[in-house]
Amino acid sequence: MDKKKITEHRKLYERMLFDDVIPFWMKYSPDRQHGGYLHMLDRDGTPYSTDKFAWPHAREVWFFSTLCDEVEKRQEWIDMAKLGWDFIMKHFFDSEGRVYYSFTREGTPLSIPRRIFSETFVIIAGVRYARVTGDHKAAETARTLYRKVVDWAKTPIAGSQKAIHGSRPMIAQGIPMIMLNVTREMMLLDGETPELMAYSDGCIDTILNRHLHPERRLLFENVAPDGSLMTDYPEGRFLIPGHALEAAWFIMVEGMARGNRTLIERACELTLWELQFGWDKEYGGITYFMDSEGEPALALESDMKLWWCHNEALLALLHALLLNGGEEFEQWYDRVHDYTFGLFPDPEYGEWIGYYHRDGRVALRVKGSNWKGCFHLPRHLLFGWKLLSKMESGGF
Amino acid sequence: MDKKKITEHRKLYERMLFDDVIPFWMKYSPDRQHGGYLHMLDRDGTPYSTDKFAWPHAREVWFFSTLCDEVEKRQEWIDMAKLGWDFIMKHFFDSEGRVYYSFTREGTPLSIPRRIFSETFVIIAGVRYARVTGDHKAAETARTLYRKVVDWAKTPIAGSQKAIHGSRPMIAQGIPMIMLNVTREMMLLDGETPELMAYSDGCIDTILNRHLHPERRLLFENVAPDGSLMTDYPEGRFLIPGHALEAAWFIMVEGMARGNRTLIERACELTLWELQFGWDKEYGGITYFMDSEGEPALALESDMKLWWCHNEALLALLHALLLNGGEEFEQWYDRVHDYTFGLFPDPEYGEWIGYYHRDGRVALRVKGSNWKGCFHLPRHLLFGWKLLSKMESGGF
Repeated sequence: MDKKKITEHRKLYERMLFDDVIPFWMKYSPDRQHGGYLHMLDRDGTPYSTDKFAWPHAREVWFFSTLCDEVEKRQEWIDMAKLGWDFIMKHFFDSEGRVYYSFTREGTPLSIPRRIFSETFVIIAGVRYARVTGDHKAAETARTLYRKVVDWAKTPIAGSQKAIHGSRPMIAQGIPMIMLNVTREMMLLDGETPELMAYSDGCIDTILNRHLHPERRLLFENVAPDGSLMTDYPEGRFLIPGHALEAAWFIMVEGMARGNRTLIERACELTLWELQFGWDKEYGGITYFMDSEGEPALALESDMKLWWCHNEALLALLHALLLNGGEEFEQWYDRVHDYTFGLFPDPEYGEWIGYYHRDGRVALRVKGSNWKGCFHLPRHLLFGWKLLSKMESGGF
Repeated sequence: MDKKKITEHRKLYERMLFDDVIPFWMKYSPDRQHGGYLHMLDRDGTPYSTDKFAWPHAREVWFFSTLCDEVEKRQEWIDMAKLGWDFIMKHFFDSEGRVYYSFTREGTPLSIPRRIFSETFVIIAGVRYARVTGDHKAAETARTLYRKVVDWAKTPIAGSQKAIHGSRPMIAQGIPMIMLNVTREMMLLDGETPELMAYSDGCIDTILNRHLHPERRLLFENVAPDGSLMTDYPEGRFLIPGHALEAAWFIMVEGMARGNRTLIERACELTLWELQFGWDKEYGGITYFMDSEGEPALALESDMKLWWCHNEALLALLHALLLNGGEEFEQWYDRVHDYTFGLFPDPEYGEWIGYYHRDGRVALRVKGSNWKGCFHLPRHLLFGWKLLSKMESGGF
């Protein structure tokens, strides 16, 4: 990218992050009455439900703590993080230390722990919160939970948790992908210990050598435990391009940290493959769910365009541009950028509308839900802004 | 409706049922190799998966048995029913007599019993199969399972089964609705016994006096156990107009059987209310999921048009036309009929495409899936054909 364009994009990210997205969540999500966040927010920021869900809640704590960690320890951001972390410590855990899935506004648990994803988001929240506040209990909470999650993650849980164990064994890409990110966050707390590095290596190996099939140029969400394709079954044909692109930049981060050029190259290759396969040639945008063999994708939301897939795609492309460069990545970056920034931002009320039909009509107008919260978009803008700033100052 | 139109529609139903829909399922669904049915069928009838699911599987047994029961005992229909029933008896039950949710082609269970819906469809399959074949074991299987299901249905299970018991008690309309239908089918086996009639009365009472709120002109899927509205919560605002319309004709059937005019009138009123609320004023068709207060309906498939909602709406309207008549019902009948028969039938490969986007674009081209099978459409055509024939011959 030429310098002028880099600066232009850096400024766009900066404006959107600091003048739009952060103010939106700071204005509408604090629950001053009961603590924690309201995150079921309508287009204009009004809550349409006061229930609280572990995923978006913990992720918002992660975001405001990370903002302090990566930008500056601004008091209002620390206060935001504290509001959420205190709610976690007060209400999130059952008697065995697992994390409930959802809560009333007051903090009464509404649904049982499902593990392991709720827990992983509490870990990264705890790590960053401990780093910026020095809260030892947050650090210990993250460490304890990390050990549990590593243990739970040993059981393959591809597909439904209602599957009969052993009836059709598969492993799910979501586990090594999220654990790769969580382990990198743990290293911010405890350093690149041999244990953490070995675990991280295992995650990368599972993603690149079992889920990724170079002969197909695709990353399969569910494969047999030995990595064999299971394409006779719908779940074995299941693809989430946005998920694969998220894994791609997690692996590029590891490549950078390890100085491992091969990792970076493989993740760059994966990025291109997923964009080539997942891009909607008719309407543009990254398709949510796909079937690797072109058989019907059964989930009714399959052909939709979701904000987060585009955040992850742009982060993968920005990493690839910084670490690798090249015309092909820049062309893809322009294409995804134009589509994304043309469709999702809400000029009227700020932040992004997250859910569009295939053809670009709004499907769900909300800013926050049990899934959408203060996470993919602000993370993309924050990390993207930092990557663009690095490029602007001439790389590393 | 005038006589000419009634005859025209009767002939349309007859043709579509006997020359299109029944031949489709007889041609593509029998699994001659392993027994039972293949029901994950692409648009042209080709299976895209050989997995078998308890819901569509049991419902197909019900349909072919009912066809014999209501039309004639044609050997090829009995053979179809037997193919499915034998698979049920051989593979469906766990050691405690609960019904697994899904199976491999060979019959190995893939996912754990979820109760109570799989079981209810096995009950109605067993009832009809026993009636047309005289199979005592099928009758006993239905009776045993019915007693279990009545017992299980006592626990309120609104919303997710992952809800923490007692944290926000609600009851779900799906339970009394399905149990009303199942109990009526049981009466075909054992007659209108005091026990069955009392249970049926209880279901009607729950639907009409707890879920239906005349002051709102809406039937709420989830309410407090005493029937109070829970509209502070998304699940308490949740509406499925197609579900309410299915309940409406179940209640009209009870009104007919009991000679209870009030029941018929209340169900007719409900039919109009649901159509007025659920009809998409912009694109036509019945909206899948809605929020009673106009808040965002979170499920991403909410604004879609699904075949079965339209089958149930037309059955409610045909019952209302036969039992009540009147211009308002005829206008609605014409509107729903024209939309439905204009959109869903597949002139190229037969049967109906089940899943459309709000604006009428195909969302999912399949004829069968883990949800769609040989049930709502053929039941609508069979019962609709019988209702139209009755009207043609001058009512009762």
